[in-house]
Amino acid sequence: MTHSTTRTLIRGGRLITAVDDYSADIMIEGERIVCIGQQLEAGPDTLVIDASGLLVFPGGVDCHTHMENTFGPSVTCDNFASGTRSAAFGGTTTIVDFALQNAGTSPLDAIARAQSKAGSAASIDYGFHVIVTHVDEDVLADMQYAIRHEGVSSFKMFMAYPGTVMSDDATIFRAMRMVGQHGGMIALHAENGTVIDLLIREALAQGHTSPRHHALTRPAIMEGEATHRGIKLAELAEAPVYFVHLSAKEALKHVIEARDLGIPVFAETCPHYLFFDESAYADDSFDLARYVMSPPLRSKDAQNALWTALKTDDLQLISTDHCPYCMKEGHLGKVNQKPLGRDDFSKIPNGVPGVETRMTVVYDGGVRSGRISLNRFVELTSTAPAKLFGLFPKKGTLAIGSDADIVLFDPDEPHTISARTQHSDCDFTLFEGHQVTGRVKKVLLRGELLIDGGAWVGRTGQGQFVARGELGAYW
Amino acid sequence: MTHSTTRTLIRGGRLITAVDDYSADIMIEGERIVCIGQQLEAGPDTLVIDASGLLVFPGGVDCHTHMENTFGPSVTCDNFASGTRSAAFGGTTTIVDFALQNAGTSPLDAIARAQSKAGSAASIDYGFHVIVTHVDEDVLADMQYAIRHEGVSSFKMFMAYPGTVMSDDATIFRAMRMVGQHGGMIALHAENGTVIDLLIREALAQGHTSPRHHALTRPAIMEGEATHRGIKLAELAEAPVYFVHLSAKEALKHVIEARDLGIPVFAETCPHYLFFDESAYADDSFDLARYVMSPPLRSKDAQNALWTALKTDDLQLISTDHCPYCMKEGHLGKVNQKPLGRDDFSKIPNGVPGVETRMTVVYDGGVRSGRISLNRFVELTSTAPAKLFGLFPKKGTLAIGSDADIVLFDPDEPHTISARTQHSDCDFTLFEGHQVTGRVKKVLLRGELLIDGGAWVGRTGQGQFVARGELGAYW
Amino acid sequence: MTHSTTRTLIRGGRLITAVDDYSADIMIEGERIVCIGQQLEAGPDTLVIDASGLLVFPGGVDCHTHMENTFGPSVTCDNFASGTRSAAFGGTTTIVDFALQNAGTSPLDAIARAQSKAGSAASIDYGFHVIVTHVDEDVLADMQYAIRHEGVSSFKMFMAYPGTVMSDDATIFRAMRMVGQHGGMIALHAENGTVIDLLIREALAQGHTSPRHHALTRPAIMEGEATHRGIKLAELAEAPVYFVHLSAKEALKHVIEARDLGIPVFAETCPHYLFFDESAYADDSFDLARYVMSPPLRSKDAQNALWTALKTDDLQLISTDHCPYCMKEGHLGKVNQKPLGRDDFSKIPNGVPGVETRMTVVYDGGVRSGRISLNRFVELTSTAPAKLFGLFPKKGTLAIGSDADIVLFDPDEPHTISARTQHSDCDFTLFEGHQVTGRVKKVLLRGELLIDGGAWVGRTGQGQFVARGELGAYW
Amino acid sequence: MTHSTTRTLIRGGRLITAVDDYSADIMIEGERIVCIGQQLEAGPDTLVIDASGLLVFPGGVDCHTHMENTFGPSVTCDNFASGTRSAAFGGTTTIVDFALQNAGTSPLDAIARAQSKAGSAASIDYGFHVIVTHVDEDVLADMQYAIRHEGVSSFKMFMAYPGTVMSDDATIFRAMRMVGQHGGMIALHAENGTVIDLLIREALAQGHTSPRHHALTRPAIMEGEATHRGIKLAELAEAPVYFVHLSAKEALKHVIEARDLGIPVFAETCPHYLFFDESAYADDSFDLARYVMSPPLRSKDAQNALWTALKTDDLQLISTDHCPYCMKEGHLGKVNQKPLGRDDFSKIPNGVPGVETRMTVVYDGGVRSGRISLNRFVELTSTAPAKLFGLFPKKGTLAIGSDADIVLFDPDEPHTISARTQHSDCDFTLFEGHQVTGRVKKVLLRGELLIDGGAWVGRTGQGQFVARGELGAYW
Repeated sequence: MTHSTTRTLIRGGRLITAVDDYSADIMIEGERIVCIGQQLEAGPDTLVIDASGLLVFPGGVDCHTHMENTFGPSVTCDNFASGTRSAAFGGTTTIVDFALQNAGTSPLDAIARAQSKAGSAASIDYGFHVIVTHVDEDVLADMQYAIRHEGVSSFKMFMAYPGTVMSDDATIFRAMRMVGQHGGMIALHAENGTVIDLLIREALAQGHTSPRHHALTRPAIMEGEATHRGIKLAELAEAPVYFVHLSAKEALKHVIEARDLGIPVFAETCPHYLFFDESAYADDSFDLARYVMSPPLRSKDAQNALWTALKTDDLQLISTDHCPYCMKEGHLGKVNQKPLGRDDFSKIPNGVPGVETRMTVVYDGGVRSGRISLNRFVELTSTAPAKLFGLFPKKGTLAIGSDADIVLFDPDEPHTISARTQHSDCDFTLFEGHQVTGRVKKVLLRGELLIDGGAWVGRTGQGQFVARGELGAYW
Repeated sequence: MTHSTTRTLIRGGRLITAVDDYSADIMIEGERIVCIGQQLEAGPDTLVIDASGLLVFPGGVDCHTHMENTFGPSVTCDNFASGTRSAAFGGTTTIVDFALQNAGTSPLDAIARAQSKAGSAASIDYGFHVIVTHVDEDVLADMQYAIRHEGVSSFKMFMAYPGTVMSDDATIFRAMRMVGQHGGMIALHAENGTVIDLLIREALAQGHTSPRHHALTRPAIMEGEATHRGIKLAELAEAPVYFVHLSAKEALKHVIEARDLGIPVFAETCPHYLFFDESAYADDSFDLARYVMSPPLRSKDAQNALWTALKTDDLQLISTDHCPYCMKEGHLGKVNQKPLGRDDFSKIPNGVPGVETRMTVVYDGGVRSGRISLNRFVELTSTAPAKLFGLFPKKGTLAIGSDADIVLFDPDEPHTISARTQHSDCDFTLFEGHQVTGRVKKVLLRGELLIDGGAWVGRTGQGQFVARGELGAYW
Repeated sequence: MTHSTTRTLIRGGRLITAVDDYSADIMIEGERIVCIGQQLEAGPDTLVIDASGLLVFPGGVDCHTHMENTFGPSVTCDNFASGTRSAAFGGTTTIVDFALQNAGTSPLDAIARAQSKAGSAASIDYGFHVIVTHVDEDVLADMQYAIRHEGVSSFKMFMAYPGTVMSDDATIFRAMRMVGQHGGMIALHAENGTVIDLLIREALAQGHTSPRHHALTRPAIMEGEATHRGIKLAELAEAPVYFVHLSAKEALKHVIEARDLGIPVFAETCPHYLFFDESAYADDSFDLARYVMSPPLRSKDAQNALWTALKTDDLQLISTDHCPYCMKEGHLGKVNQKPLGRDDFSKIPNGVPGVETRMTVVYDGGVRSGRISLNRFVELTSTAPAKLFGLFPKKGTLAIGSDADIVLFDPDEPHTISARTQHSDCDFTLFEGHQVTGRVKKVLLRGELLIDGGAWVGRTGQGQFVARGELGAYW
Repeated sequence: MTHSTTRTLIRGGRLITAVDDYSADIMIEGERIVCIGQQLEAGPDTLVIDASGLLVFPGGVDCHTHMENTFGPSVTCDNFASGTRSAAFGGTTTIVDFALQNAGTSPLDAIARAQSKAGSAASIDYGFHVIVTHVDEDVLADMQYAIRHEGVSSFKMFMAYPGTVMSDDATIFRAMRMVGQHGGMIALHAENGTVIDLLIREALAQGHTSPRHHALTRPAIMEGEATHRGIKLAELAEAPVYFVHLSAKEALKHVIEARDLGIPVFAETCPHYLFFDESAYADDSFDLARYVMSPPLRSKDAQNALWTALKTDDLQLISTDHCPYCMKEGHLGKVNQKPLGRDDFSKIPNGVPGVETRMTVVYDGGVRSGRISLNRFVELTSTAPAKLFGLFPKKGTLAIGSDADIVLFDPDEPHTISARTQHSDCDFTLFEGHQVTGRVKKVLLRGELLIDGGAWVGRTGQGQFVARGELGAYW
């Protein structure tokens, strides 16, 4: 079978893009959308998919996932195979995952290792941000090479985790300045690492070992501080900057202020910050380890501010920070993950699953509840991530010539979220038991069905690496 | 000829919407776009238009024009026939003009009068905002009727011009509250009328009669004040509000602040504020009457802030406030217009032409100069106006089912703007002699060619009234 | 007896000024302080007052009182005799009251009438602000005359109460500009009058007649709007502006913003806003008429913001807006006051008593509770009012040459506030039953005792008019 | 001679405090002011000083000087003997200098060393801030001891100069938290050290060695960043914070914002920032080494903002950062100072003289030019420093019981500033040749004359250490 001769017709759906909303048929030829129109004719060899009554979205783009994450002592429970399958079930057809620069090695090595892990395993398309942990002239040259020749134009740096991945301000500034000149972008994990580290050590010294102390030792004001600092470093570097997993109102304030001035500052938030808050950290039970992610859940007031910012475009993306660690001891025969921190919250692997629930919970809690429009939903989950990170127009829209990454979504089907019915290897979801309306029905990746109703019809390894070029064309 | 059988194929253009940018053919059947795709086949009776090398935009939507304006002692020099033809030459296929409520009469009367003027004359589509000058229970009921049954859902009120059209705060609040409850919106001319009136009387009493005193008596701070007041009235009324011709940084500041909080505040600016500044008011010559519009031109600093706000979406629309009055005495045999104020700047009719130059100058000075993207250009000049004022998706996009209002634009053709080569009845343009690159080549209105190269191929009266419904679906 | 030979020695007190805090004796000769030092010697004819264990403050200055107020249909229940005696018992030795410009008359007439009322009755010193209700060239000339020759350099104007005292923006601007050029200042009652008027009429039309609807029809956002407008008018006029009875956080925000920029904007708040909040408007009982003042009580959040602003100098004064109307029918044989509005909240006279409780409640709730320092207490209640309104250094400090207006205050004496033990003719106090610590023990006016322990030893008519000159020397 | 029997009478001056302004005589007995009054009688053994026509200020308090500074490779050219004599000639009678904690040693050692240097040399009173460069449990305990028992309650930490004195954020936070709990305060040098260090290394690598590159490598935005960070660390620590030598508008913005919220944030600026700006860095000549201080001179716009902030109390103090290094090679036989950096701007000792010119230039350029009032002048140069750093009421005012530290100042005497006529060992002053009006005529320290006309009549070693206690009583 060659792609070039396959034709698929999606008939009668309601197409939603970041700006449009209309009824039409979509004709796919090979991997691409070739025609959108009224009552298109199917040829004899055309696969016809009935989309009547369904919404038709561009495939979701999730720019923040950690598959087979080797950051820290634990490996996330999803590898690229399980994780991308889980993503596909959630309507996401592209992820941008991470390639970690190990001490003393080149970013290019990191990319090569990541490629080798994802290459044969991923069933959806993928790209990488390199996590940069060390910068010198050689590293800078390799970053530039990565942008030009490797299709990797974004890099993540940490203002937290001193002693492991934290970079100092001069290092961040230096990297920003270089990538700013060459069409790349630095993504920052913005929390003040040394202060948080002190608070953690003090808490443990006082015998505060339970999971909720994870939250108490990562105050919102220190996310705000680091966010402001990151913005100022970017301003001085005359470079764009992107904040991952923004959670605190104190951080958002600085993003808003910078954006009002037209400074190229961007930020994502994550579904867990939109649907949960710090009231989850109610007692000292270890079960709260499920709520251990960084930054931690914030106040209800912060949550409301995040929703407003999603509407006003002060936040541009919803990503998942999918970084799943199992709660059960020895789940799936793996080494312990969350339980590692039973006696010391600082040893609990930070992270929660989310790649499968993102589009569903944002649709239910965002669109149906009237907080954001349908167009904005598509923009936040697909178009803006694609544009910001150089995947557009290949990804992120329903348009002629774009990849036929398409989600058919029943806006009215109620269902209940549960880890048991999900496809991640993780044994929990924060949304366990949540009753939602709106469900992914079919998913196509470059013209081929991955999901059909509840069934997996895709192939492991079907996903391709998406080379990205210089950023900045769309902001 | 019935529309339903006419087919037109626009071949090989680069289609730009507020979000997309791709190459494709557009098939039009009757008045609507029915198919967009690669290498569409033309049938035997299909008119084929070659768009290769051209940009293809949705037709421009200009939500602020004054054709046959009867506001004040002068009538604008363009009537619906000349004005809409001028608009079409500039790539604008829909305007929202004004219907003035006369003292003691109903808004419904105003609509009827406006319809009768435009109906047989307009060669592009049109709608109306009613200018409300008096509010009581009956007027409120008629406004509600207009929203539901007349396709008129926006209303303009004045915070300036005491004694003629100015409304007091309670009246504005009352109207806002009603329309807010019924899907309408109030547009405000925000300048502090009583203070400006005092300044004008004082200036004249001191012998300051030349045109530049028009600007000196309308300080930016008083636009800022009125804008803040308008926002607070809207907040109290729990209603959206729209500011026409925002020009001052002092006004913009309040719009930004409100939008950051997610309050439904919207504003347009106009090309004259983007390309000219207060340095134009250099001396006491009467020739400066050409720069007499309200608000007047502002500082260079304000101009830069407007451009930034266009990029950050703190301003959502670029409208023209096309309100042309001739500079020459007795031009076209009409009564004097600008010359009326030769000895008294307060008698100079306020307004400048602009409907024909909008898209060209914004393309040249905005897109080509790198201030805004192509997508944002389309959003500002077509999509956002259509969405905000209830014309979308009929107008404002290139999508299946939408009206085939289409502009073919050569992005590389240089030309020089001059009143002599324009199609308005006005004898001047502020852009006289400006050399720009980018030119409207063909314009279609609901599938029919209005402009073909430099030639007018449309028909007077071809334009239709566009009934609008409840607003708010797109914000 | 001639003043010049009288000597009084206040021995052993702890003297507090806006900046200092030290123990010393004060020697008074005639009306003035002539010496402050350690262990001053009393001559044979020197009256010695023992202040050991007591705080010694400069006499309170209250710049907002309404004695024999003839504004509106009711006259306040305190005349200058009862009101100033009540003030003296509360530690206040100077008030600035109001002189109302009647329609068509001169501000100078207003001053003359006020002088004739106060002259023989006041037992403490006094000045006047003229309430300006109409402005023309003659009025402006008379205002200028009042500043230069009548010792009246401040004028109050209303942005509320259309149809009676409200001035439009141009009128306020015009007056501001003139007084700004001649060393005077406009004080504004900042609420949006026309909107409030509409809300009142609508509430009554809906049968909402009880006192709490007074509060519901005067929203905080409309105080914020008017305050912003007042500031912008002052900026344009290049004049200082003073806001009376600031109560809303929405108003405070604008004052803070202006002051940060060094713009001469000033504001007072009143004790009732500092100790009561909108939760008082709990039901429809008429007894809540006691809480009917304008602006009404605001949120707890606003209250906290007012306290912060008192500390940060964003608010500079605490005045009382003492405007007492009796709750009982025919109290003291007078015509009904609060009961006038039994069936219509809009007819309830607006105002509460406060001149006697000000210093005590601010000391107890401000200084003792740690919200403000002792120095700041003196600054807010005496020094700043004196400086701002041109009474300094005659009033407002303990310094050589200043009037010997002195309060001896026991910081540790507990007592319970009650209308029964107060000296106003008003039959209620909002602070009824409040247990406070800190009590006025002795009060001297220009060297003569008015209060000695609980006893009145002053004389009706003992107060003098204090001519004020050009303002601005102290800001 | 015992102090207790000495009496001095200052007759006929105009006394200015932070709040008052009146004419009176001051009687001094021993070291203290004992009486202030009209026409005080001199006894037979009373020294009478005629102050008629003169202003009488409390002695200046300068909270930022570096005498015999051993910070960095150079020692400042003034020791405590020359430096305090210079201060006295400038009307300053108290300084707070620095005691540097050396690596691995206790703050208490630093205090002891500083005491030994200053003890026999200082001719005016003095205190110390400890410069903390290393923090552990022992150091924290010693800091607490210093507050309670050594009269040293303020500590300076550096956010700049990595590798020498810079502390990381956790260390600063930890120190802030401890001193905040025990009545102390951290003073911060707020510039982002690692970024500046990188910029310096890059500039040198590019051959940019001249003095003006000192300014170009210390951008204002990095002072703003560090100032924000310092405020957030203090907020988290629930402690006050003080910023030394604030120069940038970007830094001031954050101080203003915090103070508006009532957060205890304080800051000084210095005369060089008020009278010079970055236009001084005009060329590559080495003579510009005289303008090398940290932070460097800023924009004119920043300078204006500093003046506004001095008026609005967003800046509370004017200190000198007197840190003099000679321009000439081998001046006074000393080792080279500024010339050390002839080939490398980063080796130029940072600092300028200023202790002798402070009061004169602020009077001339602040009071006489109408930017600040006389009272505010006294507050900025004497009262506020004394209050903020625990010296009040011993220092900082003219009040009974306070030290008789008194300056007699001729407000009308013109003179020209020159290093030749000053008393510092430094060979230049930035104010060389400035013609100013207003001159220090006599200076008393605790009742004894130090300066009489132009003559030095004091004694080396006459100054005393002033033990300070817990701070916070006055804010």
